[in-house]
Amino acid sequence: MKDLFYNYIENLQDSITSKLEEIDGTASFKEDIWKRPEGGGGRTRVIENGAVFEKGGVNISGVHGKLPASMQAYFKVGDVDFFACGLSLVLHPKNPMAPTVHANWRYFEMYNEQGKIIDQWFGGGQDLTPYYLFEEDAIHFHQTCKNACDKHNLNFYETYKNRCDEYFYNSHRDEARGIGGLFFDYCKTTESMSMKQWFEFVSEVGDSFLEAYVPIIEKRIHLPFTPEERNWQEIRRGRYVEFNLVHDKGTLFGLKTNGRIESILMSLPPHVQWVYDHHPKPNSKEEQLMRVLKSPKNWV
Amino acid sequence: MKDLFYNYIENLQDSITSKLEEIDGTASFKEDIWKRPEGGGGRTRVIENGAVFEKGGVNISGVHGKLPASMQAYFKVGDVDFFACGLSLVLHPKNPMAPTVHANWRYFEMYNEQGKIIDQWFGGGQDLTPYYLFEEDAIHFHQTCKNACDKHNLNFYETYKNRCDEYFYNSHRDEARGIGGLFFDYCKTTESMSMKQWFEFVSEVGDSFLEAYVPIIEKRIHLPFTPEERNWQEIRRGRYVEFNLVHDKGTLFGLKTNGRIESILMSLPPHVQWVYDHHPKPNSKEEQLMRVLKSPKNWV
Repeated sequence: MKDLFYNYIENLQDSITSKLEEIDGTASFKEDIWKRPEGGGGRTRVIENGAVFEKGGVNISGVHGKLPASMQAYFKVGDVDFFACGLSLVLHPKNPMAPTVHANWRYFEMYNEQGKIIDQWFGGGQDLTPYYLFEEDAIHFHQTCKNACDKHNLNFYETYKNRCDEYFYNSHRDEARGIGGLFFDYCKTTESMSMKQWFEFVSEVGDSFLEAYVPIIEKRIHLPFTPEERNWQEIRRGRYVEFNLVHDKGTLFGLKTNGRIESILMSLPPHVQWVYDHHPKPNSKEEQLMRVLKSPKNWV
Repeated sequence: MKDLFYNYIENLQDSITSKLEEIDGTASFKEDIWKRPEGGGGRTRVIENGAVFEKGGVNISGVHGKLPASMQAYFKVGDVDFFACGLSLVLHPKNPMAPTVHANWRYFEMYNEQGKIIDQWFGGGQDLTPYYLFEEDAIHFHQTCKNACDKHNLNFYETYKNRCDEYFYNSHRDEARGIGGLFFDYCKTTESMSMKQWFEFVSEVGDSFLEAYVPIIEKRIHLPFTPEERNWQEIRRGRYVEFNLVHDKGTLFGLKTNGRIESILMSLPPHVQWVYDHHPKPNSKEEQLMRVLKSPKNWV
């Protein structure tokens, strides 16, 4: 399974980065191959200062070795070996009318002393963070997520949509990071789902990413915008930073387990503002977004 | 003691904000008085878009009531009442040649069911975060800290200078946030120091703040700078955000105990950048700063 999934994310990274370069038309991804001293490594691909993408990363990694102490405590296991691999992407478009997108698909294994798998699971998801709300974009993104889920289980979309709303939540602001999508974790063998079937589900979602995001970005990148709209985008990007540094488990794990900092923090936006006690004007487009972030909606 | 210290920080807030307004010459502090539903409140003063200060806050608060559950666990006490007050300030100058400064002086009390004080202590400090290193500024700041300490105990400066270097450290980057200053906490009654003597020490440090910072800001605010130097300042400000959101105990406590978010996060800089895998050029002024941040120096 680990070879099957790693091979899958290698190919997915290629197809996503080549499509994004085609959309950008100007910038290309810079690749960094890195090794983890304790075992494994990754292939980080970052795009910056493009015509469309101000900053973005589409990274894969596959790491293994002794499970770090902090993760032993978290997973409530002893001194075991592990393997983890995944693809993580974050794209920050320049135009505030175009949304930021995040996706991650990952696979985890733990072994006993004889090298036998004692636990294994998939996790991941994809979610959208607009600065201005276009309802048709939210519907398209969620409908694409739902279509991918429905091929595998008619309950998955609702379950994982709700988990996404719960997870990507800035509790200290009492607002969602964005308009959600899917979030799933600890997808393990059950009576109705084998690991093979989970692989098929996760790769279905991975394959749906370009279909979910590309039509949106293509529609929004040529819209005009004002300096005030750009300021709003940069202020909202500040909330993105707050979520990733205060609440995101993946980021904090990475920072505390000696992960490759630059690959982890590629998720942070390029230009960000913090303005004291900023509130959008009543009945503005900015306030319309806030209403949806304050109480997540069902889009399909 | 609580009235004595609260009265002290009220006056200190006035003298600091009036001096800073005089230096800025253009912008003035905007005041927000807020109440905490569970008891107490604060007086937040924020300056933005000044000629000198791009953003800054000088806030006082005095809060009381039942100790929040998360702090009960942290202090290893039961369901007790508390009182806490303090002054917190952060100033982000516009000019990258001028350093950001942070200071905090605070006092804490806990009570038994009869309302008797069962524990009480002072804490605080002040530290400097330059974007370009002027050795004479670092020496002046530390010398002023040392002079204040030496009037009370000849070991304080060395002890609290080292604690400051340890505390304001971005462990995930393996670099200091800035060039340090003083950091002290849990200053309780001992054989050699009564609470009254701790008050005199803490207020000595508080009184030294303007003497430590004003000569530096006055020297640097008129220096010319390039757009590249401004970029460097914004990138380094990103590290400031990373420290405050990932490592700073005060910020995380505030966010997790339902503090007033805008008063807590006033510390975040106004304009910030994250650039993938950024490194200063060899032998540049930027690299000179990094060398000092990678291995903290003794300045006096």
